[in-house]
Amino acid sequence: MQLHQYARLSPDRANQQAELSSIGFPVHADSLAALIRASFAACEPQARTTNAQDDALATRAVDDHTSLLQFVQAKPGAMTREQFYTVALQYLGFEAGIDFQFGSACAYMTKTTLPMVVADINSQDEFCAAFYLLLNTRSKNLVTFIDALAERGYFQNQLGAFKIFNGKVLPTFDTRKIIRECVWIESDLDTDGDGKRDMLEASIFRPAETETGLKVPALFTANPYFHGTNDVTAVTHEPEPDLAVKPAQTQPAATATAPVDLPQREVQATATEASVYADEQGIYSLNDYFLARGFATVYSAGVGTKNSDGLRSTGGPDETASAVAIIEWLGGRRRAFTTRSGHTAIEAWWCNGSVAMTGKSYLGTLAIAAATSGTPALKTIISESAISSWYDYYREGGLVVAPGGFQGEDADVLAVDTYSRLKNAGENAQAGAAWQQRLKDLERLQDRKYGDYTAFWDARNYRKLLAGVKCGIVSVHGLNDWNVKPRNVIKLHEALAHYPVQHKLYLHQGQHVYLNNVRSLDFTDQMNLWLTNKLLGIDNDAAGQLPDVTIQDNVQAETWVTQADFGTGAGIEKSSRPLGSGTASFTDQAKAAFTKAGDNSNGFEYKIIQPDSIYADSRLVLDFGALPADLIMEGTAHLQLKLSIDQPSAIVSARLVDLGAAKRFKPNATIVGPKAYPQGCDWQYDNILEFQPTEKVSAAKLMTFAHRNTQNPVSDAVSVAPAHGEELTLEMDFQPTRYHLPAGRHLALILHGADMAQTIRPDVQTHFTINLAGSTLTLPIRKQ
Amino acid sequence: MQLHQYARLSPDRANQQAELSSIGFPVHADSLAALIRASFAACEPQARTTNAQDDALATRAVDDHTSLLQFVQAKPGAMTREQFYTVALQYLGFEAGIDFQFGSACAYMTKTTLPMVVADINSQDEFCAAFYLLLNTRSKNLVTFIDALAERGYFQNQLGAFKIFNGKVLPTFDTRKIIRECVWIESDLDTDGDGKRDMLEASIFRPAETETGLKVPALFTANPYFHGTNDVTAVTHEPEPDLAVKPAQTQPAATATAPVDLPQREVQATATEASVYADEQGIYSLNDYFLARGFATVYSAGVGTKNSDGLRSTGGPDETASAVAIIEWLGGRRRAFTTRSGHTAIEAWWCNGSVAMTGKSYLGTLAIAAATSGTPALKTIISESAISSWYDYYREGGLVVAPGGFQGEDADVLAVDTYSRLKNAGENAQAGAAWQQRLKDLERLQDRKYGDYTAFWDARNYRKLLAGVKCGIVSVHGLNDWNVKPRNVIKLHEALAHYPVQHKLYLHQGQHVYLNNVRSLDFTDQMNLWLTNKLLGIDNDAAGQLPDVTIQDNVQAETWVTQADFGTGAGIEKSSRPLGSGTASFTDQAKAAFTKAGDNSNGFEYKIIQPDSIYADSRLVLDFGALPADLIMEGTAHLQLKLSIDQPSAIVSARLVDLGAAKRFKPNATIVGPKAYPQGCDWQYDNILEFQPTEKVSAAKLMTFAHRNTQNPVSDAVSVAPAHGEELTLEMDFQPTRYHLPAGRHLALILHGADMAQTIRPDVQTHFTINLAGSTLTLPIRKQ
Repeated sequence: MQLHQYARLSPDRANQQAELSSIGFPVHADSLAALIRASFAACEPQARTTNAQDDALATRAVDDHTSLLQFVQAKPGAMTREQFYTVALQYLGFEAGIDFQFGSACAYMTKTTLPMVVADINSQDEFCAAFYLLLNTRSKNLVTFIDALAERGYFQNQLGAFKIFNGKVLPTFDTRKIIRECVWIESDLDTDGDGKRDMLEASIFRPAETETGLKVPALFTANPYFHGTNDVTAVTHEPEPDLAVKPAQTQPAATATAPVDLPQREVQATATEASVYADEQGIYSLNDYFLARGFATVYSAGVGTKNSDGLRSTGGPDETASAVAIIEWLGGRRRAFTTRSGHTAIEAWWCNGSVAMTGKSYLGTLAIAAATSGTPALKTIISESAISSWYDYYREGGLVVAPGGFQGEDADVLAVDTYSRLKNAGENAQAGAAWQQRLKDLERLQDRKYGDYTAFWDARNYRKLLAGVKCGIVSVHGLNDWNVKPRNVIKLHEALAHYPVQHKLYLHQGQHVYLNNVRSLDFTDQMNLWLTNKLLGIDNDAAGQLPDVTIQDNVQAETWVTQADFGTGAGIEKSSRPLGSGTASFTDQAKAAFTKAGDNSNGFEYKIIQPDSIYADSRLVLDFGALPADLIMEGTAHLQLKLSIDQPSAIVSARLVDLGAAKRFKPNATIVGPKAYPQGCDWQYDNILEFQPTEKVSAAKLMTFAHRNTQNPVSDAVSVAPAHGEELTLEMDFQPTRYHLPAGRHLALILHGADMAQTIRPDVQTHFTINLAGSTLTLPIRKQ
Repeated sequence: MQLHQYARLSPDRANQQAELSSIGFPVHADSLAALIRASFAACEPQARTTNAQDDALATRAVDDHTSLLQFVQAKPGAMTREQFYTVALQYLGFEAGIDFQFGSACAYMTKTTLPMVVADINSQDEFCAAFYLLLNTRSKNLVTFIDALAERGYFQNQLGAFKIFNGKVLPTFDTRKIIRECVWIESDLDTDGDGKRDMLEASIFRPAETETGLKVPALFTANPYFHGTNDVTAVTHEPEPDLAVKPAQTQPAATATAPVDLPQREVQATATEASVYADEQGIYSLNDYFLARGFATVYSAGVGTKNSDGLRSTGGPDETASAVAIIEWLGGRRRAFTTRSGHTAIEAWWCNGSVAMTGKSYLGTLAIAAATSGTPALKTIISESAISSWYDYYREGGLVVAPGGFQGEDADVLAVDTYSRLKNAGENAQAGAAWQQRLKDLERLQDRKYGDYTAFWDARNYRKLLAGVKCGIVSVHGLNDWNVKPRNVIKLHEALAHYPVQHKLYLHQGQHVYLNNVRSLDFTDQMNLWLTNKLLGIDNDAAGQLPDVTIQDNVQAETWVTQADFGTGAGIEKSSRPLGSGTASFTDQAKAAFTKAGDNSNGFEYKIIQPDSIYADSRLVLDFGALPADLIMEGTAHLQLKLSIDQPSAIVSARLVDLGAAKRFKPNATIVGPKAYPQGCDWQYDNILEFQPTEKVSAAKLMTFAHRNTQNPVSDAVSVAPAHGEELTLEMDFQPTRYHLPAGRHLALILHGADMAQTIRPDVQTHFTINLAGSTLTLPIRKQ
């Protein structure tokens, strides 16, 4: 077990003792023994009398024959490191005789990357230093020891005010008293064209202490799925059997739509109390963690969802405005009402005006979108597995390319899926016609025929709007996320470098998942340090403390590297090579093989890279041989591909593949602690996860891939005339990644035509001739 | 979807209206329209103002073009059944256009087995009747509509007192205010021989209202796993490679142990407030459901577990006494202290003196054990998947036979696993020697060598003690539970018939699982009716209302049958047949095939019944041919087997198998509603499950099996001399079951030797000669 920790501060001893005192721990007693007893007795918050504390200390061991109670009763003048860490490990949740052996506590601490003081403890000051460090050491259940104590009730007598310890805000709020309420925010939108401003529902969870004057920050999650989805109604497209031949053309950029000038609703009364209880549950353990720490959490499903007005647009400017409207209300710059149809206004009077956004996937996407508005109350976003440009979600290289796992999905399908107003049977008659028209528009404008980067997609590219960003951004992404592909986060990272915006980047080995409950990294503690700074204004040097780029290794489990940047700088060298000599050719018969085998998308993705494959005839495998030493590819690999085809146009797919029998990580993180990760005292629990290698060897793993339409050889927005047998030159950027290939493995490039899992599925069997000598593969390599 | 319901009472209209009034629903208004509006407005508890209620009513539809708000605003003089149930289905959680279509609401109600009034609604009285019925109708999320309303906050202004509706207690307690505490109960045991009474920790969760005088019942779960298990330390036995040849002998019965005469601890003070907070979580959603309904829940891991004194014995009389001690304290007949070592006594002053036990597996086992004490405070037990005799868990027919899935486990292994005192490193030095001696005794007395029913097992057979039972018993068991096998529950059921004890029996198609969250049966509502009667003393005819025996069909999904008894009575006929003519023989080479294939227990269980099998040489398959009509076997099948062997002793296994390609139920229930089953308002949520058929066909399924040692031909307690080639006659009872074999399927009997999954694994290759003509298979068949 490796428990990496980046969010621990190291104040001097005087400040350590002041912090200990501030949360009720003793720093001086009549003797060292008395201080030890009192300190550890405080670590038994379930025990409310001296006798109960003594019973508890009797259950802890200093060594294999002495309990902690016996130890302190013998009034020792010193405590050895081994004794201290034998006790410490038990408090951190490790079992003597199982996790560690008596006599080897310090060795186990080292092995588990847990911090220790350097010497035996001979004075009360030295004990305080060791004890302070222990409170800030990570436990077996992901959280630090002070948070583990909080879960067990340590702060039950200190509830209701923000408390900062080691730069991070503590769980000192009683989540059992959370106030839950809904309000309706008046937007500047009229997406359903009824002449009235779209009203947007928001669900609020806030600490009871706000009722008595406490002002708190808000974590806002714009979650289109909050009220459920229309999974039955939202039918995916059947991947088309023909690749359209398109005319040569250059797509225009998006034009801004003028704001609608609409009357505001009349205010007939004001209220400080809401009229509607919020009966949906919170959805994200990171939010729940901060709810226990006094932050309000706010959810809004947004325009066109259940209990709100308007229509969906799948990432369009109105969805950005919908999310921004909630922040503006939280920041005191927009009106809300106590009901959807009523005239009683209500302010976010309990909010301190500081808002952060959180969320994964579509939710994190809307956080990026909202950040581009520069709305002043938004102080930071924590955006996970997010889309930064919707073209990079539903299109690629002039092609329709589906998100991995969701073949046939498109902007219109997602719009239907999230239009949860359908669930309110009583109001469907009203918005029905406008919605049908919106759907027709979406289907037309998304253009599944040509797949170019049109004005429709340009209006959904948040990377064009980064000049507006005023807040720091935290990005988290899985390097195996083929749903929202890594290009979304890396292109965002590269673009942000041009602006004075703090950007912290976390890349893990997962697919489309959260990072906050992965055991080997203290991600949540880091976010605590970050938000304590951004939302509570505590000067804790969060920006300096947190690494700029944190990446999980794909070979060694529980291993994270930190660095100043990603895929660029002096540490990276570009390595180019021709693909071979002469030419090679193949005929894409994947559709026929796919149909004959009754295969599915998952099956295709797996088989197209295996040494033996039913798709072997439809691909060209270029194996660059066994690696003499470890190689770390980091950044965006590029293929300049010279080829000719016997059709007017074709889909070209390229995959970089790791070949060789090895135990690679499982695709999904393993649950190593079911419901073991506490968000606070007597509150929610999440699973604890870790990425672990498989027990059996696999033969191959996808590193990264790229797709391109031969009619868009260079630009997604520029199509060229159809081919007539001449040699074409395609410029193909692979999805950015960081991939560690150990010595002995083979790096291979696989070229093929249509991708049954993600592109459309043409029937035509296209013959490809590759000019190997004229084609160049360029890899970004981290120097070692 | 089939939502069966047995717990709904049908009071007359006057009582219905009185009940409606008692929980705040209107029963009369100025007009029918006004009553409809007011009634459904009350079904929007999230809405706290008239305007908010109107907004909510506008989201419900009466038909495809009229909202409920528009409907009531038009002041109708009547409401058709179709209109009423269109609205009703939406409130029950079904989606118009998805689950049901406009115009077909009544048809959908019928299809889903939901109850309806018989006519259109023309008066306020008729509306009240329909509305009362609706409140007691099951929703999409398993609970009744009134409980679904409670989850949404309906009772937020009526909290803190027991409320009964339709004979069942309502969730009117604020679980956010639950008081959690530990006490230590002084037992009459001194299992660790330290001369002091073993103190037993109990964790209590009770409603805050107990602090102001409310007396509440307690649900007690004796849970040896409550503080965790020693999974690393508890090493299972390697299945032995030799079957011991044993002498002819008859085992003695158990003798009672005299109670120890120990001094009681001195009481120096008394308290009403506990000294220790209970920081473990509750473990069972049925308990949590009743916690929201004002019942206290109590957990005790028992003697020899973490924070208690003493040693484990795996179901011995001291573990019974340990569970009974907690009930005696709850009933005011035993002392407890605020700490494990202290002298401050504390009473269960908040308890109304009525206790029920709940729990599955070992937990349900201890409920049966405690029931045999007849302790007066114990009013009923709900015992699921429980052991009624430990011989039927670890032994069978004079053989060591492991629980399915736990090959090599035995009484000593489970004792180590549950001896969670090991987790308290500081106290291991104290109890270590006594524990090592206890382990040696367990290993010797359990006798893995001969496997007979000895005094050790006799002391763990609760079915011998049923004369002591004073309370009603609810038993739940999976007919596919090969861990705790069905013999445990059916022999208990049969034995209880001899005593004046109420016994309600539920048999489902699961393995070793709870029933309370399976969607197609209202099990929880039934238990509510039962406990409202037993613990709150409400005269609701629970015993008459609940079926005596409820069995899930294994062919039709979501189908349950109810009957007066199981496997006996006029509806059952015994059908006997010889196994064939002449003889047949085989040689048991299973161990060699198992070893060669590197197979495991799961693999063996699957393969031994497949038409093609690596174990084909080691078995005799007697296929009785295709069934001309459906056959339902219900009860205990019996095999009188005449055979000879070429060894002094042998293991004989017999399996009844359902052969034929079919889509049978999946082994595990499917999650049809993740965290969708609410236990109360803003409280815990459990998954909703349903047993569903597989998508692919399977070739065979185990119906039931039996094992016997040839040296125990008739009795587990009586071994006979080793064989010398002569013909032996074995009397083999199969595990009782209820199995529906559709017409066309084949019933087969498979005979084989050692069972790699459950018996020991002898190396010797025994040759079996079966006298087919002389052997008789007797099946209990339910007449149709």
